Amino acid sequence: MTEPVSQPEPSQPEPSQATLNQPETFSQPETRPSDSPEPVSSLSATSNPDTIRVRAGFELHFDLPYPTPMLFVVEPTERPGQRILASRKRVVPDLPLSHSSSYVDMHGNTVWRILAPAGRLEVAHDLLMEVAAFKDPVLSDLSKTPVEALPSEVLHYLLPSRYVDSDLLGSEAWKLFGHIYGGWAQAQAVCDHLQTTLQYGAGSTSATSAREAYQSGYAVCRDFAHAGVAFCRALNLPARYVCGYLPDIAVPPDYRPMDFHAWFEVWLDGAWRTFDARHNFPRVGRILIATGRDASDVAFNTAFGSSVLAHMKVWADETEDTELPLLEAGYPRTPTEEGLRLSEAWQGRE
Amino acid sequence: MTEPVSQPEPSQPEPSQATLNQPETFSQPETRPSDSPEPVSSLSATSNPDTIRVRAGFELHFDLPYPTPMLFVVEPTERPGQRILASRKRVVPDLPLSHSSSYVDMHGNTVWRILAPAGRLEVAHDLLMEVAAFKDPVLSDLSKTPVEALPSEVLHYLLPSRYVDSDLLGSEAWKLFGHIYGGWAQAQAVCDHLQTTLQYGAGSTSATSAREAYQSGYAVCRDFAHAGVAFCRALNLPARYVCGYLPDIAVPPDYRPMDFHAWFEVWLDGAWRTFDARHNFPRVGRILIATGRDASDVAFNTAFGSSVLAHMKVWADETEDTELPLLEAGYPRTPTEEGLRLSEAWQGRE
Amino acid sequence: MTEPVSQPEPSQPEPSQATLNQPETFSQPETRPSDSPEPVSSLSATSNPDTIRVRAGFELHFDLPYPTPMLFVVEPTERPGQRILASRKRVVPDLPLSHSSSYVDMHGNTVWRILAPAGRLEVAHDLLMEVAAFKDPVLSDLSKTPVEALPSEVLHYLLPSRYVDSDLLGSEAWKLFGHIYGGWAQAQAVCDHLQTTLQYGAGSTSATSAREAYQSGYAVCRDFAHAGVAFCRALNLPARYVCGYLPDIAVPPDYRPMDFHAWFEVWLDGAWRTFDARHNFPRVGRILIATGRDASDVAFNTAFGSSVLAHMKVWADETEDTELPLLEAGYPRTPTEEGLRLSEAWQGRE
Amino acid sequence: MTEPVSQPEPSQPEPSQATLNQPETFSQPETRPSDSPEPVSSLSATSNPDTIRVRAGFELHFDLPYPTPMLFVVEPTERPGQRILASRKRVVPDLPLSHSSSYVDMHGNTVWRILAPAGRLEVAHDLLMEVAAFKDPVLSDLSKTPVEALPSEVLHYLLPSRYVDSDLLGSEAWKLFGHIYGGWAQAQAVCDHLQTTLQYGAGSTSATSAREAYQSGYAVCRDFAHAGVAFCRALNLPARYVCGYLPDIAVPPDYRPMDFHAWFEVWLDGAWRTFDARHNFPRVGRILIATGRDASDVAFNTAFGSSVLAHMKVWADETEDTELPLLEAGYPRTPTEEGLRLSEAWQGRE
Repeated sequence: MTEPVSQPEPSQPEPSQATLNQPETFSQPETRPSDSPEPVSSLSATSNPDTIRVRAGFELHFDLPYPTPMLFVVEPTERPGQRILASRKRVVPDLPLSHSSSYVDMHGNTVWRILAPAGRLEVAHDLLMEVAAFKDPVLSDLSKTPVEALPSEVLHYLLPSRYVDSDLLGSEAWKLFGHIYGGWAQAQAVCDHLQTTLQYGAGSTSATSAREAYQSGYAVCRDFAHAGVAFCRALNLPARYVCGYLPDIAVPPDYRPMDFHAWFEVWLDGAWRTFDARHNFPRVGRILIATGRDASDVAFNTAFGSSVLAHMKVWADETEDTELPLLEAGYPRTPTEEGLRLSEAWQGRE
Repeated sequence: MTEPVSQPEPSQPEPSQATLNQPETFSQPETRPSDSPEPVSSLSATSNPDTIRVRAGFELHFDLPYPTPMLFVVEPTERPGQRILASRKRVVPDLPLSHSSSYVDMHGNTVWRILAPAGRLEVAHDLLMEVAAFKDPVLSDLSKTPVEALPSEVLHYLLPSRYVDSDLLGSEAWKLFGHIYGGWAQAQAVCDHLQTTLQYGAGSTSATSAREAYQSGYAVCRDFAHAGVAFCRALNLPARYVCGYLPDIAVPPDYRPMDFHAWFEVWLDGAWRTFDARHNFPRVGRILIATGRDASDVAFNTAFGSSVLAHMKVWADETEDTELPLLEAGYPRTPTEEGLRLSEAWQGRE
Repeated sequence: MTEPVSQPEPSQPEPSQATLNQPETFSQPETRPSDSPEPVSSLSATSNPDTIRVRAGFELHFDLPYPTPMLFVVEPTERPGQRILASRKRVVPDLPLSHSSSYVDMHGNTVWRILAPAGRLEVAHDLLMEVAAFKDPVLSDLSKTPVEALPSEVLHYLLPSRYVDSDLLGSEAWKLFGHIYGGWAQAQAVCDHLQTTLQYGAGSTSATSAREAYQSGYAVCRDFAHAGVAFCRALNLPARYVCGYLPDIAVPPDYRPMDFHAWFEVWLDGAWRTFDARHNFPRVGRILIATGRDASDVAFNTAFGSSVLAHMKVWADETEDTELPLLEAGYPRTPTEEGLRLSEAWQGRE
Repeated sequence: MTEPVSQPEPSQPEPSQATLNQPETFSQPETRPSDSPEPVSSLSATSNPDTIRVRAGFELHFDLPYPTPMLFVVEPTERPGQRILASRKRVVPDLPLSHSSSYVDMHGNTVWRILAPAGRLEVAHDLLMEVAAFKDPVLSDLSKTPVEALPSEVLHYLLPSRYVDSDLLGSEAWKLFGHIYGGWAQAQAVCDHLQTTLQYGAGSTSATSAREAYQSGYAVCRDFAHAGVAFCRALNLPARYVCGYLPDIAVPPDYRPMDFHAWFEVWLDGAWRTFDARHNFPRVGRILIATGRDASDVAFNTAFGSSVLAHMKVWADETEDTELPLLEAGYPRTPTEEGLRLSEAWQGRE
């Protein structure tokens, strides 16, 4: 027998003009940018012009010499601005129920935890998401909240962390950006500066801190994010590292293999605001997986023992599908050799 | 560019005979009961004889005179003993992103929160789960933990709550069960007593407390669970209410329309243990949706305003499918008239 | 060697006109009421005209036939509007360290947890607090937040609980108060109604719910609070039960033995607001101990076993002391027989 | 009117041989070391030979050019093994209630948060604590918990953090300690190694990481703790940084000015265990203030703006007092010039 429906019965209807209160406000621009795509909603009877659907996921293969405990921070959850319509998870070999579980970490991220047997481990995730059809909001006038007016729970995003040695970038930060008035303006100036002074390219390792990457002049998306977070924290702007999927929507196609992406968020006017020092212009379709102090909190994989990443495929593409295709259709196609060649020729992404 | 894999490299492998530490231990019986089904695992290359797959879900239609804020506590999460292989969610009409979100409540349950427009609202959820192939463990020797040795975070499960007026059942509890030695034995005696003294059948409303149902002599699964929780709390056994899906596996088929099910858990020997005063024998395939103090915490739907539940379908069936079928195949079939007639003739379920 | 001082060094000072962000905003009236006392601050070199000092505490004696696990919810913590300047705790007999501890419950209250030996147990607490010199704010214009705009973490304060059977008072609530416009106005109307319909006086027991007390026509402070909370929840106003100390400041003296007090809070305009259906006019000097769904969460004492409360003394008085007097001075004086007689003659308090 | 005492009435007494369950187990040695002091308990009628009393506290003066937001992590809370009998807090100038508050951070530490005016700020805290009369337990046989069996909530204490660059010390860790069998043995070997390879002495700054201090050969208590934590994390032993008070009990007196102390804890056999690479032998009387990933989480003071620490006094001494002396008696005496000279002559502390 069912749980009964609990129904307070007001003699007058509740006002309903407001939207749901959301712990982490997602600010939508007042007007829809003219260059955003025209999505058609199909999962429902009525179409929703303000959202698009994105199929995102990954396939990872590891070779493990010994049984190895592993963590995966890869699962997006529902948040303001992103809904999960369908999902599928696949682990080969199938693990005993006692060898896999998941938990929510101190930042609110879902973490998969497995004890993988020795040998080849395959982990795959496939998602159909509904996300905003709009570009990242640009709210240039947002002011800076003085430290004393910040909520207590964001204060620790002002402190240095493993890859965010903001304490060592304080002088540089105040020299370069201290004179800029306004919170958004300061964070944007940080991004602009990183865009012009850092060249996209490998050079960093998993041990590289924000200051080290900044001084080297080379950065991948992780380093761009760490440096952005570090300068913001040095300026007393709470900032956190974000990892997620970023589909190529409303930008020239990039045929190179896709990867997870990293960006960052700054606490301004009572909400976390999206900044991306790597691309540094508003994008459509971000799917946020997890947030943390820096990459040590939200590495997509942490293996407690030796492991070799033998294969990695990531996808995140706009789709008109209203469901996940059956698995026999396979995961989205791997880029062709030709596509890769074309893509590398086009330097636009960097 | 990707988050790098963090790889501490031990010069010697970690021991790996242990299973994952799980915050809420799921105790498996030492030996597999001979009458449990023989599942064949198919989602993975290797088959896992210890698990079965269950397709579970629901379809709910509401008629709303006004825009209405609603909560749904319906989403199972990964826990020891249950894995989500695939899921699909559907809301019609499609809501603006700002009118739906989800959050994790103080008990760790995922709650969907929507602002529904006036008119017809359809909400559906469809899951492919992997669960243990074994029956609920019976661990008759588990002792009772003295109150002073209980972890602080379970102490509030000793206090009365809206539908669990354990303070009013204290004398009855100690008179009936106070002489029984052992924690499991005491909780089992409570279930046995409720089985023999309560007749399955409507009579209760959404306002009925444990004591009221107990005194009426009639109970549905919700009342059985409340009464079980109430007697246990009165006996200083921490107890909580559980709602979830219960497929008909290894029991005579029940052709009547399925519903969500309610049972309860008792904290014994460091873990929450499953008891079901309604059925009162070990079952296979439970899918836990949520836990709380009582039904007020975990009603599958709470509407802040008038609402009429116009249609309700719930399913939870063992399956050999390795994926969710495409939606065009429809949700699992509604029971036929014939099936219903047969089922009602068979009184075994009560 | 010390932890070094971490010092981000801004090249320009932070603005500092704002006040500290406080998770539970304490709203101060714009102007200081003319009839509030003129405190003199003495603990510090400069005097602070906006605060007074209050000495508060209790002495409880229990007789226990057996060793008994006990919980005490009696410790105020620092909150917006109240500071702890000094404190002293005393338990006789002295317990082994392993027989006492404290923890923070799910509502953020500090709970003392002890395993008391058989025999006489004495527990005492003595506090010197600094609190606002102003009366409870009256903010009559605060509007009602629609359910969909409430933060997720206050939603559970809309649900019924053990002593707050708001689901059973829904019709009465909407009939009496549904037509009133405004959130503060609605909550105040609830208090006014309870003041005129409930007579102060015993009659309730520890099992009495809001509806039962309301229907009986008699109420003590606990019942007033439960009824206020119940009507507010029925009206979709999040409400919670509060226990604390209430000194007699700026009111005629009450010579009867003091007790802990109970009042309630309503979530309005983004903060918890104080209402007191028992007194129903703004008071000075409240010291909040704990908040919860109802009295089951925050009973000052819960004993898991038989216990007899043999002696109880509670104090909460404005003081000019800048420190707690040494214990040899004793706890504040017990009311005299004469004082009691006078006080009972004066019916003003009820 | 009072909250009633909630009294479940068992017909048989609860067993009471067990001790209170404590979230962070404090393990006491089976036998009391023969050289521990003979405390006399005085706060209570009966004396408790297993505890001593310690008066601890600090006085800090800052000079601030501008109004400055500040955090203080200085308040011990009740924990297994330490009780607060009395406390006194003093801030000069007295701040408006809106300019000070406190909150509990993500690690469970109490943090004072103030907005200090420009000029001189004085902050003082004075505590009378009851702590175990025994030395830090030595439990040499405790085994190492495999990563897969660790509770999820301690996993993040395996990851690197700002001052604990354990990822860079992995090879060194496994080379030096990988062959050692047993968890306690491994952590103790880390401490022994640091004792012999690091010389006590300044050299580090607030920016120095574990690896940097280790390579420099010089360390203060903070560096000893960071290095201990780093090596343990590299070895897959969850470890956290601890700050607190450490009185000179059962050790030769040290007349130099006292400071806060730092040590660390390792998760072994289901509890956090105390290690102190700086002193590296069991001590009596530790008062734990806070724990965190490293010093960035628990700096005793963090100022968001320029600040000069003009004066610092810390005390932590065994006492026979049963109450805090009145403030007019002053805080414990500052060391004399003579004492300092004697103390520096004696090199035993390093």
